[in-house]
Amino acid sequence: MAIGFSFQWLFLLCLVSSVPFSLSRITPRFPSSLISPEKVSVSTTTKLYKTSYFTQTLDHFNFLPQSYQTFQQRYLINDTFWGGAKTKAPIFVYTGNEGEIEWFAQNTGFMFETAPHFKALLVFLEHRFYGKSIPFGGDKEVAYSNTSTLGYLSSTQALADYATLIIDLKNNISAVDSPVVVFGGSYGGMLAAWFRLKYPHVAIGALASSSPILGFENLTSPYSFNNIVTQDFKSESENCYQVIKDSWQQIEDTAKTSKGINLLRKSFNLCKNYEYIGDYLESWLSTAFVYTAMTDYPTPSNFLNPLPAYPVKQMCKAIDNPKSGRNSNTFEKLYGAANIYYNYSGTATCFDLEDNSDPHGLSEWSWQACTEIILPTGGSTNQSIFPAYEWHYSDRASSCQRAFGIHPRRTWITTHFGGFGIERVLKRFGSNIIFFNGLRDPWSGGGVLKNISETIVAIVAKEGAHHVDLRFSTKEDPEWLKEVRKQEVRIIEGWISQYYHDLAHLSF
Amino acid sequence: MAIGFSFQWLFLLCLVSSVPFSLSRITPRFPSSLISPEKVSVSTTTKLYKTSYFTQTLDHFNFLPQSYQTFQQRYLINDTFWGGAKTKAPIFVYTGNEGEIEWFAQNTGFMFETAPHFKALLVFLEHRFYGKSIPFGGDKEVAYSNTSTLGYLSSTQALADYATLIIDLKNNISAVDSPVVVFGGSYGGMLAAWFRLKYPHVAIGALASSSPILGFENLTSPYSFNNIVTQDFKSESENCYQVIKDSWQQIEDTAKTSKGINLLRKSFNLCKNYEYIGDYLESWLSTAFVYTAMTDYPTPSNFLNPLPAYPVKQMCKAIDNPKSGRNSNTFEKLYGAANIYYNYSGTATCFDLEDNSDPHGLSEWSWQACTEIILPTGGSTNQSIFPAYEWHYSDRASSCQRAFGIHPRRTWITTHFGGFGIERVLKRFGSNIIFFNGLRDPWSGGGVLKNISETIVAIVAKEGAHHVDLRFSTKEDPEWLKEVRKQEVRIIEGWISQYYHDLAHLSF
Repeated sequence: MAIGFSFQWLFLLCLVSSVPFSLSRITPRFPSSLISPEKVSVSTTTKLYKTSYFTQTLDHFNFLPQSYQTFQQRYLINDTFWGGAKTKAPIFVYTGNEGEIEWFAQNTGFMFETAPHFKALLVFLEHRFYGKSIPFGGDKEVAYSNTSTLGYLSSTQALADYATLIIDLKNNISAVDSPVVVFGGSYGGMLAAWFRLKYPHVAIGALASSSPILGFENLTSPYSFNNIVTQDFKSESENCYQVIKDSWQQIEDTAKTSKGINLLRKSFNLCKNYEYIGDYLESWLSTAFVYTAMTDYPTPSNFLNPLPAYPVKQMCKAIDNPKSGRNSNTFEKLYGAANIYYNYSGTATCFDLEDNSDPHGLSEWSWQACTEIILPTGGSTNQSIFPAYEWHYSDRASSCQRAFGIHPRRTWITTHFGGFGIERVLKRFGSNIIFFNGLRDPWSGGGVLKNISETIVAIVAKEGAHHVDLRFSTKEDPEWLKEVRKQEVRIIEGWISQYYHDLAHLSF
Repeated sequence: MAIGFSFQWLFLLCLVSSVPFSLSRITPRFPSSLISPEKVSVSTTTKLYKTSYFTQTLDHFNFLPQSYQTFQQRYLINDTFWGGAKTKAPIFVYTGNEGEIEWFAQNTGFMFETAPHFKALLVFLEHRFYGKSIPFGGDKEVAYSNTSTLGYLSSTQALADYATLIIDLKNNISAVDSPVVVFGGSYGGMLAAWFRLKYPHVAIGALASSSPILGFENLTSPYSFNNIVTQDFKSESENCYQVIKDSWQQIEDTAKTSKGINLLRKSFNLCKNYEYIGDYLESWLSTAFVYTAMTDYPTPSNFLNPLPAYPVKQMCKAIDNPKSGRNSNTFEKLYGAANIYYNYSGTATCFDLEDNSDPHGLSEWSWQACTEIILPTGGSTNQSIFPAYEWHYSDRASSCQRAFGIHPRRTWITTHFGGFGIERVLKRFGSNIIFFNGLRDPWSGGGVLKNISETIVAIVAKEGAHHVDLRFSTKEDPEWLKEVRKQEVRIIEGWISQYYHDLAHLSF
């Protein structure tokens, strides 16, 4: 099977496709792109927060003439529940990921739902180079145009942005003594954890949800991600797993003849012909499987498209008990499964494998995945639900070279943020971090799954998917999920009361 | 007295003098410029270490085309005492300050003297833009020429250099499991403490000697520095203090006439005439008092010039019991005191107030003091041994504007490294830092003088001066100094044995 490259696309399809600055729908950006606006409709979001802008420094770490340039960083703020500066009421800050901050705010119900209890001010910080926080005059065309401008997009600059903005905001509202707790999911969770580690003087604690801070080379197997996807489907049905596993070769064989291409186009109800239909179709299907595994939530949700509760189970039902009956062929079964992900609302008339829409502004993740956030996820073993594929760093490096003309800094993240021997390093250093992971989430393989110390703790939900804890609650939420959120609230309460105690009793 | 500007020269004379890139001898760079090569002569230094170079990234935090440029970073290494990688023997790393690393190595006897006991590998890292670690092809003329090149000189880049180099070195010598302890004095001590806080996965602990990490605006009074100098002289003799305090007005009055200028030239044995002799002379004298206070060591030492043991006491003796007899005038007394600092060897034939020699390559400190390391030290109260002077940030800002055409980033250091509420922040976060301070040291006002937690501890020596603990021991060392060093060794032993225990018992 010549589909080597099509299965290392995770985070990278847009590079492989030689259209570096565009984004395909089938590019599974970063996990965070998966949190879903569930209960918050556009009509209600206007009440969720006010929008503000902060004049941010372009380059915190150098003092070159251009370092002093500034840009407008967007942040959202909600003071409905805040107890105010006088009572030193807490400030909950979301450390924005790689997309529009409004989308993350609308999908982080946990903060809104716990704010009344904590009397917390809510602040959502947008990550530089995303949404409306675009350097170089706010012009994406300029900012994204080449490495001389995009080069300022980095996690360390983003963290320094957050520290600078939070300190300034606290001064402006005379809330210097209000404790700050940071929250984030996925890449935003990595940023939350790293923020607590690098800026303990700014945030007293972090809830880092589904943050694969150990998902880097030589820390987590590059096969872990697809192993978990595989396990998710296998756990529903062995037949489901086997049908999907066997399908790739069939697609490829079928795509070799024009008759076969027609068959594929018809079977999958595609809007048009594709030159490399096999590769496109495999990416389109595998994207559906991966995204569905990540968002295998216990209640109906809505990411890019609506999904039912337990969508992996639903996909496997579509494969095991196809609507077209017992004699359905593989393509009919797969099409039924794909419809769960791509057409649960039932409104699609045909499918476009090249849909490049990017409603949440996630495109620049490719740059981050090519410079520093080198998360190896593309490897597949012989037992994988996907075709076997050996992960090589060199493949990523050459994709990035082609796309941006740059070399990834292969070891920078672990140099700067650590990861190796994390239990040894953090058992006696640092405090107040919750690492939540759901084991259905393919990213959980790179997460912190064991307690490190009394105050750096892991909450692991066997049945959980990607940052399910941060989502708005629903009446249908299972008990384990309610319990996870309660536990998180209890821990954060502990941080805050410890903080007030220390503030009153420590002298310098 | 119109000497306002001449008493805010601390760190800044070279700016005031409008020769931004030159360095006057009377510029008291940073405290670290004061550690003195005492026992190590040039002839023996060849045995102290081997010199190596590391290809270092110019800009760790951005991914611009120019960020990928590299330079050769110098480091010194001594494996004489090392127990080797197999036994996971420790690595002691000096986090170099603002000057030639050889000079710091030759003046950090504590590391050489404790290495045999710990079986430690010794490594001394040179700070970028100093010594031979010059970006832009190693050419100081290019690197120092303007803000477009000098802009890469920053503490955060230096710390990232250190992390990158240490990790690479450990990999290269297969010593990944060897614990690293970092050491530093003065600015190097600040870097050591910050390194432990930002890179706990690289260093298990830090000995930060005489590091004024709290010496920033709104954390430490800008009058603290001169208050301590004042107290040092007062503690020796009230008369000594008073003579010096009263002298400034006399110098200024005398400098108003040409007869007076001649008198000053003769009284202070100056090699030539100066247009603004009053200002120059006051700077020359105050430099002597400040440096002598900082290096008020209990044994003979040798900084830029040789000094006797307890040099403040010797200066006050020269004032209280002048050689020229009881009827000596103020200038004769001051000249006697100045001779302690400038001519203890007795070889000077006359004095040059404008000596611009910079044997240890400290010139670029001015840049750091104008960009981020804004340590306010120039204020003097009415009780000060120096003329009263109100410290204003705006004075520093306009000096820097004149000198480099840049604005200082006034709050960046505390934004990035913290400082406010340090006890509250670090009591339950971080571990394994020793803050040593000697209370005779004017910089001790910005130091951590109280224990923060069980493992972040302050060692305070009432009789101590600037990082006296790091100096080579002598037979004449007082008991308190021996005890300080013993205590430091005991604490470091504890870190290392805890590390080995954790390495053996922790699983991830």
